[in-house]
Amino acid sequence: MRAVDVIIKKRDRGEHTREELEFFILGYTRGDIPDYQVAAWAMAVLLNGMTPRETADLTMVMAHSGQVLDLSDVVPRAVDKHSTGGVGDKTSLVVVPAVAAAGLPVGKMSGRGLGFSGGTLDKLESIPGYRTDLTVEEFKRQLREVGAVLTGQSVDLAPADGKLYALRDVTGTVPSIPLIASSIMSKKIAAGAQAIVFDVKVGLGAFMRTLDQARELATLMVDIARQTGRKAIALLADMNQPLGHAVGNALEVKEAIATLQGQGPADFYEHCLTVAAHMLVLGGVADSIEAGRARIAEVIASGRAWDRFRAMVRAQGGDVRAVDEPERLPRARYIETVPSPRAGYIAGVHARRVGETAVLLGAGREKKGDPVDHAVGIVVHVKVGDEVEAGQPLFTIHANDPTKLAQARAALLDAVTWSVTPTPRLPLFYGVITG
Amino acid sequence: MRAVDVIIKKRDRGEHTREELEFFILGYTRGDIPDYQVAAWAMAVLLNGMTPRETADLTMVMAHSGQVLDLSDVVPRAVDKHSTGGVGDKTSLVVVPAVAAAGLPVGKMSGRGLGFSGGTLDKLESIPGYRTDLTVEEFKRQLREVGAVLTGQSVDLAPADGKLYALRDVTGTVPSIPLIASSIMSKKIAAGAQAIVFDVKVGLGAFMRTLDQARELATLMVDIARQTGRKAIALLADMNQPLGHAVGNALEVKEAIATLQGQGPADFYEHCLTVAAHMLVLGGVADSIEAGRARIAEVIASGRAWDRFRAMVRAQGGDVRAVDEPERLPRARYIETVPSPRAGYIAGVHARRVGETAVLLGAGREKKGDPVDHAVGIVVHVKVGDEVEAGQPLFTIHANDPTKLAQARAALLDAVTWSVTPTPRLPLFYGVITG
Repeated sequence: MRAVDVIIKKRDRGEHTREELEFFILGYTRGDIPDYQVAAWAMAVLLNGMTPRETADLTMVMAHSGQVLDLSDVVPRAVDKHSTGGVGDKTSLVVVPAVAAAGLPVGKMSGRGLGFSGGTLDKLESIPGYRTDLTVEEFKRQLREVGAVLTGQSVDLAPADGKLYALRDVTGTVPSIPLIASSIMSKKIAAGAQAIVFDVKVGLGAFMRTLDQARELATLMVDIARQTGRKAIALLADMNQPLGHAVGNALEVKEAIATLQGQGPADFYEHCLTVAAHMLVLGGVADSIEAGRARIAEVIASGRAWDRFRAMVRAQGGDVRAVDEPERLPRARYIETVPSPRAGYIAGVHARRVGETAVLLGAGREKKGDPVDHAVGIVVHVKVGDEVEAGQPLFTIHANDPTKLAQARAALLDAVTWSVTPTPRLPLFYGVITG
Repeated sequence: MRAVDVIIKKRDRGEHTREELEFFILGYTRGDIPDYQVAAWAMAVLLNGMTPRETADLTMVMAHSGQVLDLSDVVPRAVDKHSTGGVGDKTSLVVVPAVAAAGLPVGKMSGRGLGFSGGTLDKLESIPGYRTDLTVEEFKRQLREVGAVLTGQSVDLAPADGKLYALRDVTGTVPSIPLIASSIMSKKIAAGAQAIVFDVKVGLGAFMRTLDQARELATLMVDIARQTGRKAIALLADMNQPLGHAVGNALEVKEAIATLQGQGPADFYEHCLTVAAHMLVLGGVADSIEAGRARIAEVIASGRAWDRFRAMVRAQGGDVRAVDEPERLPRARYIETVPSPRAGYIAGVHARRVGETAVLLGAGREKKGDPVDHAVGIVVHVKVGDEVEAGQPLFTIHANDPTKLAQARAALLDAVTWSVTPTPRLPLFYGVITG
């Protein structure tokens, strides 16, 4: 087999065999096949597509390009969740301890933020001392003893995916649904997941801009799960406006803490209930979504979800006082409220622009490896459909640089659109894709 | 400007500006833009296409990526020819001296063979001592003094094209009509051509298999010539069966010599008359194709074309005795005639298979840099439409290895298809594309 013939096959709209994908992807991972051949192939895949069968094979080839975790000695069925990324999405911080408190241990390996989209690891690292570099042994021990783990990848899971993703990033080949789906799934499978709830974000602040795209990705991921013997469901979740109020690392941790204590924003609480309930159902701990929701509401109301979060923070070396007294979390020098310049109904709070403003303030990164400022960010006080008086707070900006503060103020006012007549609220979810 | 944005524009079916192509192609030539980005872009171009305007801009960017020869001090209008490559195509060896003898000096930089397709330089190097590495100064002096030059590229003409072509070869991005057209045209323009006759081969032994593809390439090249201020016409020439009889380097030189002496195969002589006549018309030396044909027929009949060939060989250091007495050219150890196994009409002599058999014997190369054996090759005694008796010679194989001789015999018999009823001859040309 020659690499160029694999490229030519996809160029000519052929369907790869499992053997071809193994030869090509593992050859690339070993360094036997050069970047330029894989770049040409990735463009051919983006433009000509892959069948679900090919995508499932690519997923398994990438998953098995490195170590595949086996959690079966720790949990009867490892249930994971994955968000495709958005603005203000601190869901994992709430659902992991809540689901654990409801009786289903959850160990999750998360990622960092890039561009307008935040990352769970950056948020957690707002907590002084919190370790995101657990070894596999530490991960498993904590999953057994605490039931809740939120860490980074300690081993190089699915190294083929890591190498391919870096190449796609610089060759214009990121927005391919089969390549996105196989990238996500390969990491989940390598991390030991037997069942996965996909939180597929759609809208202005998501990578999937249209419901059609989001549904295509969700359907493909659920299908790959089925083909590879995993259980999965996918939620299609709104990301036109930020989720909850807080955008920025420490600010989002505070909001997650409030939510775990029963005082979170209504939309975010509801989002967490739904995601967590699906996890309980997939994990066999709840018989129905309704039962799962009730169970999660109960562990939040009783404080057991919060206790589990504290136990997780302590187990991972975090300073528990900083979560007990969130004013101890990193705090920005300049905190300024932006009042509404007018009265009216909120027609839109452009999620991507809010996310980009948070990056401008230092909360996120333009490119991999950039440092982030955990203190800075934005609290969005309004939701689409709200009626607002002139002078009422729209945003609170947390900044460490007065110039950036001024730029953020202008950008945020631009991110709001108005209506003189009442506008409907946005739905939280647009649908559920089941296998 | 970022390289990835240029890729994304073509991925999304955008049309490049001249500035984008300069940035991308010259950045690649300098080494500032890596292979993998250009590979992804080339695949996007292959699958999404380029407009004629983009293709003309790409051509000029590549042509000017290195030195551009100016022949205006030597010839009033530099007329070139280009064949897209085939089997038994020794046209340049005849038309360059014939056109020169007819009053239009021609200096041509040719290439080497690759795969089933032969190359003019390999053929010429059958002549002991013949130099194909003239400097630009030697090229111009000979063009002025002898009027006929057939050499290789002494300087790195259109280096961007050279680098891009090598990358396309290993990334499955060769068969893109805009990339092929701009590759050919950029080298012709860099070599100083002001007018070009394109000999676009179509059929089983050509890179363009269908008339539609050949017409598309021909039309695009003529259009690029017009857009860049050059004159051009393109002939669509049959390449389903080999051109003439001889396939293989010294064998083709012998056939070219015979043709220059008025004793060539009818089809090849006719092909040369047509190509050369169009060159005379483009060069302003003949008023019509008919007048041009008559002029070429006259210089062949009078021996002046042959004299010019001898003068060219002498000027380039070749042994004139070897062309005066062609039995002095390299000669294979084993010469075997393959008789016809049956009676019937010849329905096909598969040009690519004959070319591949010549490569098998050692006449061509599988990959760049391989050596070639000038002595070996095949003489094809039959043409499509011929009526043949059992036992009549079909091929004469010239080999230096008995095993390969046996393989060639089998392959050649497989290359012939038969009819029990009379079959029409193949046309030499399918059309002419003018600007």
